[in-house]
Amino acid sequence: MQPDRIRIDCPPWLARFPDWDRTYPDDDARVGLAIALARENVVRGTGGPFGAAVFESATGRLVAVGVNLVVPCKNSMLHAEVVALAMAEHRTGSFTLAGPGLPPHELATSCEPCAMCLGAALWSGVARIAFGAAREDARAIGFDEGPVFPASYDYVRARGIEIGGPVRRAEARAVLELYARHGGIIYNP
Amino acid sequence: MQPDRIRIDCPPWLARFPDWDRTYPDDDARVGLAIALARENVVRGTGGPFGAAVFESATGRLVAVGVNLVVPCKNSMLHAEVVALAMAEHRTGSFTLAGPGLPPHELATSCEPCAMCLGAALWSGVARIAFGAAREDARAIGFDEGPVFPASYDYVRARGIEIGGPVRRAEARAVLELYARHGGIIYNP
Repeated sequence: MQPDRIRIDCPPWLARFPDWDRTYPDDDARVGLAIALARENVVRGTGGPFGAAVFESATGRLVAVGVNLVVPCKNSMLHAEVVALAMAEHRTGSFTLAGPGLPPHELATSCEPCAMCLGAALWSGVARIAFGAAREDARAIGFDEGPVFPASYDYVRARGIEIGGPVRRAEARAVLELYARHGGIIYNP
Repeated sequence: MQPDRIRIDCPPWLARFPDWDRTYPDDDARVGLAIALARENVVRGTGGPFGAAVFESATGRLVAVGVNLVVPCKNSMLHAEVVALAMAEHRTGSFTLAGPGLPPHELATSCEPCAMCLGAALWSGVARIAFGAAREDARAIGFDEGPVFPASYDYVRARGIEIGGPVRRAEARAVLELYARHGGIIYNP
């Protein structure tokens, strides 16, 4: 029989890493935080080379952060975007970030979302996705990005979600290369 | 600041619902369980009209079950497939169900997977996906299935994943219609 509960333990540094008191005014600052989270996750050896964060679009207030926890948590779905979106929904107490009374939110991620995360972003109700590295950069070190096509972006845009990127691409790609150089696990290649 | 942990509480009936001692030899039995889980979730009012289960392909041994928990858990990613795959990985102690020493696994679901769940299935390492209702059936009651195209299935198949369905479609569709008739929440329509 299976348990009644799934527990996802984030590394203790994660919640303490970002400055929660400042605001993140633009893509440069928002994707910059996502890339810094990705780098920290590699340096500390607590997961894959990906980071993400959720912000209130207008104010730039930070709502939640996430990093890739696939290997340490033994859960292939714990991409950085999934962790950040789950935390954001937990903090807002809503299964949609587009819920009544909530301001528009956006997702910033250190790398272009894979097929699963593009779907997760769509269901989360974020109004915008901004990313650092391009999917080719992830593929260059062996990570598959899944079935994402130009038509996938058209579909997401048609539902009112803006997509911006790549932003700070060289810096984002450098984190992926750092992970590969250190022999990080490329799961399900 | 955000918490260090995400806890996903499944409804207490979930783990107790299936017969863990029998085997599920074919699509009919496997998708049948997924549909029964979906129906139970609607009848008990514990989430959306979707169920899923993970099996060892050859033996038909049941490994894990899941139901849609989006609304009760306030988490837009908790589709039935995601819950079942996370439970299966927890039970096998592996971030991939295609890991060394593990037999091939397959995912049975009461309804054709959305874009997020198709990606999640790909990353989970299952060797096969079997589904009950078709995506049109979910759309008929207002659920969006996201950017899934014929090319998405080609992509997934090219990575060695078989796809079978629809199976027991009328029965699966009846669960969706039951949910709609009872005024169930259609989130992010």
